[in-house]
Amino acid sequence: MLTRSDIDRVVSAALAEDAPWGDATAEAFVPASVHARAELVAREPGTFSGGEVFAAAFALTDAAIAVSVRVADGERFAAGDVLATVEGPARGVLTAERVGLNFAQRMSGIATLTSRYVDAVAGTGARIADTRKTTPGLRAIERHAVRSGGGYNHRYSLSDAVMVKDNHLAVLTASGASITDALRSGIATLPHTMRVEVEVDRVDQIPAVLAAGVDIIMLDNFSLEELREGVELIAGRAVVEASGGVSLDTVGAIAATGVDVVSVGALTHSVRSIDLGLDIRIDSEAARS
Amino acid sequence: MLTRSDIDRVVSAALAEDAPWGDATAEAFVPASVHARAELVAREPGTFSGGEVFAAAFALTDAAIAVSVRVADGERFAAGDVLATVEGPARGVLTAERVGLNFAQRMSGIATLTSRYVDAVAGTGARIADTRKTTPGLRAIERHAVRSGGGYNHRYSLSDAVMVKDNHLAVLTASGASITDALRSGIATLPHTMRVEVEVDRVDQIPAVLAAGVDIIMLDNFSLEELREGVELIAGRAVVEASGGVSLDTVGAIAATGVDVVSVGALTHSVRSIDLGLDIRIDSEAARS
Amino acid sequence: MLTRSDIDRVVSAALAEDAPWGDATAEAFVPASVHARAELVAREPGTFSGGEVFAAAFALTDAAIAVSVRVADGERFAAGDVLATVEGPARGVLTAERVGLNFAQRMSGIATLTSRYVDAVAGTGARIADTRKTTPGLRAIERHAVRSGGGYNHRYSLSDAVMVKDNHLAVLTASGASITDALRSGIATLPHTMRVEVEVDRVDQIPAVLAAGVDIIMLDNFSLEELREGVELIAGRAVVEASGGVSLDTVGAIAATGVDVVSVGALTHSVRSIDLGLDIRIDSEAARS
Amino acid sequence: MLTRSDIDRVVSAALAEDAPWGDATAEAFVPASVHARAELVAREPGTFSGGEVFAAAFALTDAAIAVSVRVADGERFAAGDVLATVEGPARGVLTAERVGLNFAQRMSGIATLTSRYVDAVAGTGARIADTRKTTPGLRAIERHAVRSGGGYNHRYSLSDAVMVKDNHLAVLTASGASITDALRSGIATLPHTMRVEVEVDRVDQIPAVLAAGVDIIMLDNFSLEELREGVELIAGRAVVEASGGVSLDTVGAIAATGVDVVSVGALTHSVRSIDLGLDIRIDSEAARS
Amino acid sequence: MLTRSDIDRVVSAALAEDAPWGDATAEAFVPASVHARAELVAREPGTFSGGEVFAAAFALTDAAIAVSVRVADGERFAAGDVLATVEGPARGVLTAERVGLNFAQRMSGIATLTSRYVDAVAGTGARIADTRKTTPGLRAIERHAVRSGGGYNHRYSLSDAVMVKDNHLAVLTASGASITDALRSGIATLPHTMRVEVEVDRVDQIPAVLAAGVDIIMLDNFSLEELREGVELIAGRAVVEASGGVSLDTVGAIAATGVDVVSVGALTHSVRSIDLGLDIRIDSEAARS
Amino acid sequence: MLTRSDIDRVVSAALAEDAPWGDATAEAFVPASVHARAELVAREPGTFSGGEVFAAAFALTDAAIAVSVRVADGERFAAGDVLATVEGPARGVLTAERVGLNFAQRMSGIATLTSRYVDAVAGTGARIADTRKTTPGLRAIERHAVRSGGGYNHRYSLSDAVMVKDNHLAVLTASGASITDALRSGIATLPHTMRVEVEVDRVDQIPAVLAAGVDIIMLDNFSLEELREGVELIAGRAVVEASGGVSLDTVGAIAATGVDVVSVGALTHSVRSIDLGLDIRIDSEAARS
Repeated sequence: MLTRSDIDRVVSAALAEDAPWGDATAEAFVPASVHARAELVAREPGTFSGGEVFAAAFALTDAAIAVSVRVADGERFAAGDVLATVEGPARGVLTAERVGLNFAQRMSGIATLTSRYVDAVAGTGARIADTRKTTPGLRAIERHAVRSGGGYNHRYSLSDAVMVKDNHLAVLTASGASITDALRSGIATLPHTMRVEVEVDRVDQIPAVLAAGVDIIMLDNFSLEELREGVELIAGRAVVEASGGVSLDTVGAIAATGVDVVSVGALTHSVRSIDLGLDIRIDSEAARS
Repeated sequence: MLTRSDIDRVVSAALAEDAPWGDATAEAFVPASVHARAELVAREPGTFSGGEVFAAAFALTDAAIAVSVRVADGERFAAGDVLATVEGPARGVLTAERVGLNFAQRMSGIATLTSRYVDAVAGTGARIADTRKTTPGLRAIERHAVRSGGGYNHRYSLSDAVMVKDNHLAVLTASGASITDALRSGIATLPHTMRVEVEVDRVDQIPAVLAAGVDIIMLDNFSLEELREGVELIAGRAVVEASGGVSLDTVGAIAATGVDVVSVGALTHSVRSIDLGLDIRIDSEAARS
Repeated sequence: MLTRSDIDRVVSAALAEDAPWGDATAEAFVPASVHARAELVAREPGTFSGGEVFAAAFALTDAAIAVSVRVADGERFAAGDVLATVEGPARGVLTAERVGLNFAQRMSGIATLTSRYVDAVAGTGARIADTRKTTPGLRAIERHAVRSGGGYNHRYSLSDAVMVKDNHLAVLTASGASITDALRSGIATLPHTMRVEVEVDRVDQIPAVLAAGVDIIMLDNFSLEELREGVELIAGRAVVEASGGVSLDTVGAIAATGVDVVSVGALTHSVRSIDLGLDIRIDSEAARS
Repeated sequence: MLTRSDIDRVVSAALAEDAPWGDATAEAFVPASVHARAELVAREPGTFSGGEVFAAAFALTDAAIAVSVRVADGERFAAGDVLATVEGPARGVLTAERVGLNFAQRMSGIATLTSRYVDAVAGTGARIADTRKTTPGLRAIERHAVRSGGGYNHRYSLSDAVMVKDNHLAVLTASGASITDALRSGIATLPHTMRVEVEVDRVDQIPAVLAAGVDIIMLDNFSLEELREGVELIAGRAVVEASGGVSLDTVGAIAATGVDVVSVGALTHSVRSIDLGLDIRIDSEAARS
Repeated sequence: MLTRSDIDRVVSAALAEDAPWGDATAEAFVPASVHARAELVAREPGTFSGGEVFAAAFALTDAAIAVSVRVADGERFAAGDVLATVEGPARGVLTAERVGLNFAQRMSGIATLTSRYVDAVAGTGARIADTRKTTPGLRAIERHAVRSGGGYNHRYSLSDAVMVKDNHLAVLTASGASITDALRSGIATLPHTMRVEVEVDRVDQIPAVLAAGVDIIMLDNFSLEELREGVELIAGRAVVEASGGVSLDTVGAIAATGVDVVSVGALTHSVRSIDLGLDIRIDSEAARS
Repeated sequence: MLTRSDIDRVVSAALAEDAPWGDATAEAFVPASVHARAELVAREPGTFSGGEVFAAAFALTDAAIAVSVRVADGERFAAGDVLATVEGPARGVLTAERVGLNFAQRMSGIATLTSRYVDAVAGTGARIADTRKTTPGLRAIERHAVRSGGGYNHRYSLSDAVMVKDNHLAVLTASGASITDALRSGIATLPHTMRVEVEVDRVDQIPAVLAAGVDIIMLDNFSLEELREGVELIAGRAVVEASGGVSLDTVGAIAATGVDVVSVGALTHSVRSIDLGLDIRIDSEAARS
């Protein structure tokens, strides 16, 4: 997904943050000659994401450390499963441990939460999508984790797709033009490769938006009844996205209204890390010598 | 806390991530001449953090935008409170909105959660401390938010304090030395400005660690009864830190055992953002012209 | 378009490249006290682009230099027109001159060439679009210049829209699936905010592609006759883009075939800079003292 | 020429620009297991440059891709020649294709244009040199391409050689000193390792400049007759550089006047990329499985 | 000590500084085919530091160069000793030579000076420590060199330990509080992992500082007699650090007063590089062909 | 000399190094409301350098701090002189103090040492020049300081001037060519803006080098007698540079031999910082409130 140079950049920055002038404990207490073997073990069940990023944390600390990832991104795991093995000089293994775990726990936490939402809408035609409510600096990583969990990505940034929200509509109406005409004239200036989504708050806004020829209509904070009305009114002429008030409890019913997409900010803005641990075995022969 | 150049660096990176080649929507639908006034409004009660970072998001997008932060970091707010005002060209305000909100919501989320833990231990002598389980790249920001919530920071990185964990102890015993001697010889190589913390899993490990003259002993995953035993055994000769199994439900009882510090990974590794919104009013005169 | 922090980053890098350890000539021959007034003057007619970038070159060299841009991006100018004025310490003005000119000349060169293509298709329904054949590192800047010239942007990068080319089609057919089915199954995995374009080499490939429900079909290196056939066959069910063999001589006839978009790699891959000069007047009073 | 770390930095930035969050098409349509073999083929004759940079584009995308460059920088090639081969996972090959081509096409375009100028002055004693009119951020790359084409580099930046232009001369005369004295006093402050070039607009300026003991005199926008006069007047006491009004049509006559150097801004400021293509063969066995 | 990615970052920056657009001499005078073998030889005795950094200078210039470091950081060497060997393409060896030597000479210079101070306090209980008076940008490197010389590191930065100096004490007293109370209230806000050092100028300040429960007391510019008084007064209740007026002539007597630590700014703020040379043997067979 | 963006980059990096997550002491002990006035005072006489860099350290920490530099770079000062004043929030002043001092002390140390060498050759025709033996990452800063001290800069890097050393000569002779011919053929490939220096170890090497038409001959480690011979033999046909064995004791006699330049590695490779202090006065009114 990300290029090698992108992964290296993110992980190098995290290592510099966590050991700006070395690992005081490892240097004082772990002789350079000690060797370690470690296993990344799941402490709870979940969906894995972040194998390449986990591995890079060790390689960029000490090129002599070898990491073998045993579970593909997107695979489910049970508590106790070994997800990866790490082997090499103990100092570097201990130094990179937290950074490697931070990435794998966060990414697998996102993948696991996403997979729960995906399971909850199974059998409907709706897909689960993320939002731009990601952690500053980690969007590419977190978006990858959403895909690992079976979710779909929404637009990545302000630059790659249009989303007309209430504030934009306020500007459009301030100038006296009709919503339809204002949308049309803005759309005409966009790259032909770019989709246009408009967010509406009420059912009665839909016809004017549809008339402008938009690609996606977001029904924001609609009741289930209103969602059904909206889907019926749009009738396949635009992709229908539901947003707002979505939780694991409500998502099934929302999806059952016939919407195409349910976007869920919680996938990335309130991440609970999955509990993964690194079980390290010191090679006692080496440590003794 | 952070220097001006540090805040600028973090916020610039977030803006580049969220609008790598501009805001397609604002450019297509918002004339350059439109002016906006906006208010950062709390949608739920909490503890504020991130004023300077929020302001930088707008200034680094367009120097013509003025931000006035009305609530100091660490102050509590009610739902509906206006936390900051923003005023300037509408395009830039809309472009910077998400990045500014992402930082303020995340930081205030951490501050608010921290303040709940702090409230829960009120009246005991214990303090609430964070851990290294922070978001890669955002540690300085998140640590600041913990302080805003009345919490205390733990060591920042592997470089600034020693934490001897079970894996390090395994290395020390592999070589045949006693724990006490091994700790002493490692401590002797450390900077005199650096504190030493040792993590123990059982009460019976404490005497050997104490004998080495360490500064802090972390009692990891101890029961309440074991915590009380540990506190009594240590008897003020080292700072006592409790860790593991800490939640809002358990933290009060843990603190009441007499420990000095309760460290809580959840403060930063499972952040729920606080719901803040940016209410934007378009200056219709300008928009019309 | 670009945020202030983005413009500063690009221009700082250019200044560091052009004066890595200062301007030897200015330091040796221009006393620090000498003041200069300068005008950015067009040596040939064209369409302007790059005002903000030009100004930043001087401000980042010496904060005491003031730049006033007189022509908006997208405006046409005649030979001899004054496009901007610069005033401040002569050393900094001379040091920043080449970097400021390089950006303004390149961007205005792109805008001017684009405007010629745009003029050549006037009266047809076709728009002129750029491609990813931009200068490494300067894509955002060059894309802005295309818009200044009245052109439209194509997808920005590999990340924001799908373009299925012959090599991808080769993969799809290698697995034995029909084009239509293979396209459909790939499309189903994409973000709902992302458009899909497929490049075809022959008219007979169109029906299978259309059947998959793509947004845009690129007719690559088609003759005028084939373009007309393609337009007729597609019949509004997808945006039609013509590409290949496009020059100022051929673009009008290509546009007249009824295609929606003509994409022109030459807009950015073979840029001729516009001749702009910086006419500098030394303030002789200051220079004498 | 450039160090490995310099090439990696330039190419990494270009990849980040072209695939900021991955290659949507390759991920959706190319299974991770598909293998590709590709050839970099010349679509038109030219002079090659950029082999190392082309190879780095693939290596920094996926370390599993192997590139073998078959033609040395500076070698001429015919249409149809295979310049390099690429082999590895198809996804990465397709992702890196455009960046690799952009560099190779641009660099070979500069080398090819340069070689035409070099051919045009064959038999005279003059050399072809580039200028500082390069693409911001790519100067080192473009300068290398000029050398590949048989051209010579001029000063790299404002920091490494002195060029006194009309604006500097205006400062010098404003203070009332003679040109000769003013030049001498400035030269005395320069590093002894730095050459001094002065630009003159008229023949009658030459004696005063020569008297100051400069290394190089640039005759700017001189007619052929004036160039001959200048050469005769300078008589070997300084290197003579002709500049201004140079094209492939005029460069031969300019060189024949006896000047030592003809500097040509067009080598880099109006680059036409050479048409190179990447012919990709999918390994159908792998694609099928 | 430093991670691989940290060393690469520092050395890449140094190479970019020293050869921003290549090594003009090597390119003009050394054919690409020439091979070289080189030895890093000590021209004077000393203590070595910087092996990994030296090696990285060559690897980051040309991956085809192999470096074998023969002396561990911290080992003493005699004049004439071979500290490392280098082998590979002569161009890259010559290009990287100065950067590699700069690091090794500076780091070994620090290690050697440090070892002299360490020798001078042998037999006392005092350790030699560095200060924050390091070279901007090179602190991690220089701190490592101090350890190579047998010295100890002081706090790394303003962020990782507290040092209350006269200016801070002035603030504390300005508010009318007693020193003891003011220190206590500040200390109560600090991370429990952080040590507190207070600098005093006079013996009579010690009791108030001790009463606040600080970890370290720095006796600044005390006479030998005052140092002895201070040590006696503190009586093991805090670490005692002597600072100010320390030279190789005085350090022994200072250490003999019973202080625990002598901090020496000169270790890094007035570094004399050790004279190391790179003896290069050109492989004449290769050079001839 | 350096652009504003270059100074900001160097100083920001130094601040990030010295306060990566804030100034723990200032935050704990200095209320945000306390105001400070400070003076940069010379503790010993010297030559000043670094005013702009010193000022940037405070501005980049807190934009509310004002710095006024009273002494120009290159001016001499006496012990006790006030070189600059600083005024603003005490926290930021204390945080930036060490970084500001580090730069000013190092740069003024270089300027002061340089001025002593310059004084020692007064009355001879020789100039004092620096070398590439600078601190990695700080070359531009250190070169500026050499100029402040009245010295001259040598080539900045491997990229901007040619220096043929013994190892290059070994390559040239290995191929069987004469020194003169080999030098000529290399020189012919160089930019016409670049000077060529050749280092010789013995007087008898000079004629062959001179015959090649080089610009500068470096007489490396020559005795005074040999230097006089060399000067006589070269007789003004090349600049003569003496190098090796230069100290304050020997430089006068070396300069008196008639050489044009004496290059002194010690100017930057063994810097003794000048003792400057920041005398801070707390505004007690503010501190009390």
